[in-house]
Amino acid sequence: MRRLASFRSLVWCCVLVAASPAPPPSRPPGAEDGYDLWLRYRLVGDAGRLAEYRAALTHLVVEGDSPTLRAAHDELAHGLRGLLGADIPSADHVRGDGALIAGTPATSRLIAALPPPVADELTRAGDEGFVLRALRVQHRQAIVIAANRDIGVLYGAFALLRLIQTDSPLSDLPVVSAPQLRLRLLDHWDNLDGTVERGYAGPSLWDWAHLPDSIDPRYRDYARANASLGINGTVLTNVNADARVLAPDFLAKVAALAAVFRPYGLRVYLTARFSAPIELGGLATADPFDPAVSAWWRGKVDEIYHVVPDFGGFVVKANSEGQPGPQDYHRTHADGANLLADALRPYGGMVMWRAFVYANQVPTDRVRQAYDEFVPLDSRFRDNVLVQVKNGPLDFQPREPFHPLFGAMPRTPLMMEVQITKEYLGQDTHLAFLAPMWEEVLRADTYSHGAGSTVARQIRGLAGVANIGSDRDWCGSDFNQANWYAFGRLAWDDSLSSAAIADEWIRMTFSNDRHVVDPVKALMLASREAVVNYMTPLGLAHQMARGHHYGPGPWVSGGRADQTSVYFNRADSAGLGFDRTASGSNGVGQYFPPVRNRFASRDSVPETLLLWFHHVRWNERLRSGSTLWEELLRHYEAGVDTVRWMERTWDGLEGLVDAERFRRVQGFLRIQDVEARWWRDASVAYWESFSHLPLPPGYEAPAHPLDWYRLLRCPPDPRKPRCAVLGGARVPADK
Amino acid sequence: MRRLASFRSLVWCCVLVAASPAPPPSRPPGAEDGYDLWLRYRLVGDAGRLAEYRAALTHLVVEGDSPTLRAAHDELAHGLRGLLGADIPSADHVRGDGALIAGTPATSRLIAALPPPVADELTRAGDEGFVLRALRVQHRQAIVIAANRDIGVLYGAFALLRLIQTDSPLSDLPVVSAPQLRLRLLDHWDNLDGTVERGYAGPSLWDWAHLPDSIDPRYRDYARANASLGINGTVLTNVNADARVLAPDFLAKVAALAAVFRPYGLRVYLTARFSAPIELGGLATADPFDPAVSAWWRGKVDEIYHVVPDFGGFVVKANSEGQPGPQDYHRTHADGANLLADALRPYGGMVMWRAFVYANQVPTDRVRQAYDEFVPLDSRFRDNVLVQVKNGPLDFQPREPFHPLFGAMPRTPLMMEVQITKEYLGQDTHLAFLAPMWEEVLRADTYSHGAGSTVARQIRGLAGVANIGSDRDWCGSDFNQANWYAFGRLAWDDSLSSAAIADEWIRMTFSNDRHVVDPVKALMLASREAVVNYMTPLGLAHQMARGHHYGPGPWVSGGRADQTSVYFNRADSAGLGFDRTASGSNGVGQYFPPVRNRFASRDSVPETLLLWFHHVRWNERLRSGSTLWEELLRHYEAGVDTVRWMERTWDGLEGLVDAERFRRVQGFLRIQDVEARWWRDASVAYWESFSHLPLPPGYEAPAHPLDWYRLLRCPPDPRKPRCAVLGGARVPADK
Repeated sequence: MRRLASFRSLVWCCVLVAASPAPPPSRPPGAEDGYDLWLRYRLVGDAGRLAEYRAALTHLVVEGDSPTLRAAHDELAHGLRGLLGADIPSADHVRGDGALIAGTPATSRLIAALPPPVADELTRAGDEGFVLRALRVQHRQAIVIAANRDIGVLYGAFALLRLIQTDSPLSDLPVVSAPQLRLRLLDHWDNLDGTVERGYAGPSLWDWAHLPDSIDPRYRDYARANASLGINGTVLTNVNADARVLAPDFLAKVAALAAVFRPYGLRVYLTARFSAPIELGGLATADPFDPAVSAWWRGKVDEIYHVVPDFGGFVVKANSEGQPGPQDYHRTHADGANLLADALRPYGGMVMWRAFVYANQVPTDRVRQAYDEFVPLDSRFRDNVLVQVKNGPLDFQPREPFHPLFGAMPRTPLMMEVQITKEYLGQDTHLAFLAPMWEEVLRADTYSHGAGSTVARQIRGLAGVANIGSDRDWCGSDFNQANWYAFGRLAWDDSLSSAAIADEWIRMTFSNDRHVVDPVKALMLASREAVVNYMTPLGLAHQMARGHHYGPGPWVSGGRADQTSVYFNRADSAGLGFDRTASGSNGVGQYFPPVRNRFASRDSVPETLLLWFHHVRWNERLRSGSTLWEELLRHYEAGVDTVRWMERTWDGLEGLVDAERFRRVQGFLRIQDVEARWWRDASVAYWESFSHLPLPPGYEAPAHPLDWYRLLRCPPDPRKPRCAVLGGARVPADK
Repeated sequence: MRRLASFRSLVWCCVLVAASPAPPPSRPPGAEDGYDLWLRYRLVGDAGRLAEYRAALTHLVVEGDSPTLRAAHDELAHGLRGLLGADIPSADHVRGDGALIAGTPATSRLIAALPPPVADELTRAGDEGFVLRALRVQHRQAIVIAANRDIGVLYGAFALLRLIQTDSPLSDLPVVSAPQLRLRLLDHWDNLDGTVERGYAGPSLWDWAHLPDSIDPRYRDYARANASLGINGTVLTNVNADARVLAPDFLAKVAALAAVFRPYGLRVYLTARFSAPIELGGLATADPFDPAVSAWWRGKVDEIYHVVPDFGGFVVKANSEGQPGPQDYHRTHADGANLLADALRPYGGMVMWRAFVYANQVPTDRVRQAYDEFVPLDSRFRDNVLVQVKNGPLDFQPREPFHPLFGAMPRTPLMMEVQITKEYLGQDTHLAFLAPMWEEVLRADTYSHGAGSTVARQIRGLAGVANIGSDRDWCGSDFNQANWYAFGRLAWDDSLSSAAIADEWIRMTFSNDRHVVDPVKALMLASREAVVNYMTPLGLAHQMARGHHYGPGPWVSGGRADQTSVYFNRADSAGLGFDRTASGSNGVGQYFPPVRNRFASRDSVPETLLLWFHHVRWNERLRSGSTLWEELLRHYEAGVDTVRWMERTWDGLEGLVDAERFRRVQGFLRIQDVEARWWRDASVAYWESFSHLPLPPGYEAPAHPLDWYRLLRCPPDPRKPRCAVLGGARVPADK
C-alpha cells in the first residue's frame, strides 16, 4: 500500500477509465431525486471558470494502489468528468501543464519530491489533513493534493472538487486543512428490526436481513458522502441497544459493512447493551466487578476485532430511560465504562459513555442531573473513555443553553452529541437549518478556564444523531441534507460560519446562480429561529406532544413528571417559566461564575433563555419595554411570519431550481406553514387559559378553541407523524 | 382532446424536445439499481438492428394533445433516445422516410386517412388495443401506432418500444393486439400506517403523510410501468381495510394519486371496510338493509366521484379472518355486495367481492368453504359486482389445483386473484418465476361447459396482489420484477407462454445476448417447480411456519385448526395427505365430472396433486413404481439440487451481467441455497418421525435433528424475516 507507483497501479487507472463510458440515458433526464446529495458534479455553468478548470486540470496522476487512493482516484475521475464535461485521462507521469497530482510522500515520487514549503504544510496537515497547492512540478504547471496518509488524499480530493463545485478560483490555493476534533461521528439510532428511533427518512439503511450475502450499493455512497465531509466514524446501532448485534451472525454483517466503509476512513462503532453478558453470554450478572463479566467482555471484544480489525469501540447508554447499567449493581458510571475500556484498550478502541441519564426518582430539576452525577466522577475514567454530553442539559430542544458539564470535568475527555435528525424541530418536513444552533453552542464561552474557554475547546469529538434512512433522498427532505452536511463540516472545522456552510451547500446542491444562492441562504439562516419562535420562544422547552414529539402539547401532564410539558413550563396564574436561580432549583449554580451570574440576573439573562432560567409574571415588563405576554405573542407571530416569508421566497425561485425539487420543497413549506400556525395557536390558547390576558390588536387569533387542539391525534404512520394537520385538512384522528 | 393536431400540440412537442438535453453524468456510470425495471432503454447492441431501427424511425409525428397522448409522445421520445442513441425529432408532418406516426382517427389526420385494412384492424383492436403497422404514408415509408382511444396509443407505444428492446425485426409488423380481460388490476395490501401486509420490498409506496402536498415522482414511474403492461387499475389499500381511507382528508390524497395515474389509463380503486358507516359515519349499524346505511354509502360514493371522477370501485373482504361483513347482520354476501354496487352504479363503478372467506366454525375441509358459500348465491349479485376468486381454493400456495368456483357460477362474473408477492414462495429472496404457475391455472380445463372451458374463459378480470414497495428496485429483488411483468403480460394476453414472457423480460432487463437469455430463461422456468419441490412437493400445502409464512413448519398445530400445518398434511403413522375423495371430505365433488373423476382416482390424479386429494401410505407404490416415501425424498432432493444448479448457472454469467445485479442476485441465491436445504431437512426430519423409514443410500441426511428446526425463531425485522438462517450462520434467535 505504501510503495511507490507501480505498473500495477497504473494498469488499474487505465482499466478504470476505460471501463467507464458515459451512462446512456435511462430515465427522463434531469431527475433530481436527491440521491446525489451535494456530490452532484454537474457541468460548471460559468464559461470562464470552466475554461480555467479545464486548462488547470488536464490529466490525473494518482500514484499508489491502496483502496483509499483508488477511491480518491475514482472520485476525482468521476467528479471531474461531470464538472468539466469530459474524461480527464489518468497518467503515470506529468505529461504537460495541468497535471492533478495526488498522493502521499510514501506512495508518490512526485509528492515526495515537492519543495520544502509543502513539507512544512504537510506537518501542519497532520494525520488526517491535506494540502492543496498550485505549483510547478517538473517545469509544468500542476495542482497537488498532498497528505501524510492516504485518507488525507481522499479528503483533499473532495475538498478540491468542492472548490470547483462552488465556482471558486483555483488561485485561492494553497489550502492547508486539518480537523480540530479527532472523532467525528454519526450515531445511527437504528434498530435491528429495521426501524429507526426518531428517524424520519424511511427504514434503516442497514439491510440486516440480507447482509452479509447481499451488499447494497448505497453503503458505498453513504461512505463517500461521509468522507466528503471528513466524518470518520459511524455508530451503526441505537443507543437503546439490542445485545443481539454482538452475536456472531450479526457481527458477520457488521464486518461486511466495515469492509465497504474502510477505504473511506469510516470506522464502525456499535452500541453495547450493558446486560449483554446475561442476555448473550448466559451469565447470571453483568456486574462490572465480576471476573466472569470482564472475561466475557474481553472475549467478545477479541471476537469483534477478529472480524473488524479497525473497530472503533462502543457507545453506551446506561441507567437512563430504563436501560441497564452499572448502577443496577451499585457501581458507578466510571466502573461500567472502565469495564469496557479495559477490554478495548489492547486494540485502541474507545468507549463513549453517555451522560444523558435519568434518575429513578423524579428530580426537582431534571436538567441538573447529568452534572450532579458525573462531575464527582472526574478523573475516575480510563483514558480511552470519553463522556458524551448532549449540547444542552435537557434533550435536543430547538434552543437550550449549553450543557454545564462542558469545562466542568477537566480530567475527563468529553464528546459533544447533537441531533441531526430533527426530533423536536419539525422532523422530516419543517425546514430548519441547524448550523446556527450548533455554531451557537460551539462558540458559547464556558469560562471554565477563563474567557475564551468555548465549548468547542472543551471537547475531543462531535457525534451527531443521524437523519439518514433508506428514503431515496437519504434524509427525508432536500433541506435535511444540509444538516448532515453542516454537521460534518463543523466537526471538521468549527470556525466555519453557518453562512459559509450554507453557501457551499447551496452551490453544490442547487446552483451557483446568486439569484438562487442569496435567497436560499437567507431562508436557511432564518429557519431555525423561526422554529424556536413558533414552537418554544423565549427559553421555553419540551412543549411538544407526548411520544412523537411532533406537534404542540404544552398541556401534557401525567406519567413521569420530568417528561411532561407542565414540569418544564411551570405555567400558573402568576406567570411562566422555570426558576433555576438560587431561589429556585439553582441550576444556574452549575455554570462557571461569570456565566452563572449572567443567567441568574433578570437584567443580564439573554432574552432567548429568559424562561429557561426564570419564572416571569405575565405582565412583567422585560428589558424590551414590553410585557412578557406581549413579547411571547410577538415571538410566536414572528415564527409564523418567517415561515410565510420563507414560502414566498421559495416560490420566487420557480424556474431557477429544477421543477422536481422546487415542487417537493414547496409542498413541505406548505405543510410547515399550516403547522407553524398550529403550534402558535395551540400554545397561545393554552397560555391564555392562565394569563387571562387579551390578544393585542392586530394579532391573529387562534383558529380554534383550546380543546380542539388538545383533542388532535396523530394518524397511523409512526414514521411520519402528521398529527392530523395536513394541507389544511384537519381531522381528529386516532379514533 | 379529440380534435385534430393543432398548432398548440405541435408547440409542446417542440418545447418538450428542446427542454430535454442528455443528462450529465451524476454518479458512477452504469448504476444498475433496478429502478428502471424493464424500461431501461439502453442503446441497441446489435449494429445491424440499430441501423435498421435508425432508418425506420427518423422522426416522430404524434398528433393530439391529451395528457395520455403526451405521455405516449414522451415515452417514445425518451425510449428512442436511449435505444437509438440520438434524439428523434418531433414533427408536425411526414417529412421523409421513417416517420413514426401515432394517434387515433379522432386526433390525427394521418391516422384517419390510413387505408381500409388498418380500419379493419382497428375494429379488432377495440377500446384498449392498438395496431402497429409498417406502411407507406404520403408516399414515404412510415411506422404507425394506431388505436381507437388515446390509451391504446400509449399501449402501442410501449409495445413498439418492447419490440426494439428485444431486438425484434420491424418486419414482424403488423401487430394487432387487444386484451381479453377488461379488468387488469394490481391489489396493494398497503396499510395507512405505511406497512404492507405480505410486502417484502420496504414500506408502502404511498406516502400518505405528505400527500397531497407533496407528490413523489415515483408515482409517475409506477404508472408508466403499469401502462407498459396494460395494467389498468390499482387498488391502493389493503383488503384488511381501514375505514379512514374514506375520510375526506384521505380522499384528497387518493385524488392526488389518481391525477398522476390518469394519463396512464390506471384507475384507482379502494378497499371498503364494511363497517365504515359505523366507524366513519357514526351510525349504529352497517346492516345492508338499513336505509341509513345505504344512504351513507351513496353519499360517500358521491363524495369519492366528486374528487376522483374515474374512480374504479371497491374491493371488499367481508366475513373473513375477522373482517366485518353482511353476515354480522344475517345478510348474505350478495346483500352486502349489492349495497355497494347500487351506490356505485350511477357512476359505472364496480364491486369486487372476495370469495376468500373463513367460517366462524372450523370446517371439516377448509378448501370447500368458498364454493359452498358462494355457489348458492349465483344470480343474486348485481351486474356491477364481480366475485373475486383466488387461483386455488386454499391460499396462494406454491401449488394448488384450480379453484372449483371457476365455471361454477355461470350467472355471476368472476375475477381471478393471484399473488404476485411471494408470501408462500420465499418472499423477497427466493428466485421463483410465477408465470408457469399462472399459466397452469389459466389453462386448466374446468369442463364447466364441456372440454375447453379453461379457467381463462371463466373470468372477466385478473387481480394480482402487488409485490411493490418503496425499495429502490420496487420489488425487493431483481427477479421479483419479472413477476410484476409476467402478471401484466398474462392479464393482457393469456395465450402468452411463460417462456415467451421470460424471454422478453430478460432481454429488456438484462441483455439480448443469447449467452445471457438462454441460461437465465432456463433458470427462471425451473424456479417455481424447485420451490414446490423443496417446500411442498406432491400436492402438500400450507406447511410453513406460523405468522410469517417464510420457513418450514410442518409441525405447526394449536390455535385455529384450519390455519395449522397438521390440519393440511394429515401426517400419521400410516401415511400422508388430505383425503378429499368421497371417502374423505369429498372436496373432489366440487369439480365438474371429468375433472372430479381424474382427481378422485389414485390412477389418474396428477402426481403433483397427489397429497392434496389423497391420504397415501408411506410405503405405497405410486404410478412411478417408487413408494411415496422414496418419491417424497426424491422431490425434496430435486428442489435443493435445482437451486444449486440455478446458483451455478448464475455464477456462469459473471461478466455478462453488470456487476451490481450479478452480485445482488448471487447473494440472494446463496441465501436460497441455505434455505432450500433448511426446508428439505426440516420437512424430511418431521415426516421421518411418522414414517420411521430409513433414508435411501446416497440421500443427504438432515443437518440437524428435528428439534433444532422446531426451535428456530425469526430475527427482528418483520419486513424481511430471515428466520435465523442466513448465509450459513444459524442461531436460534428470538430469545
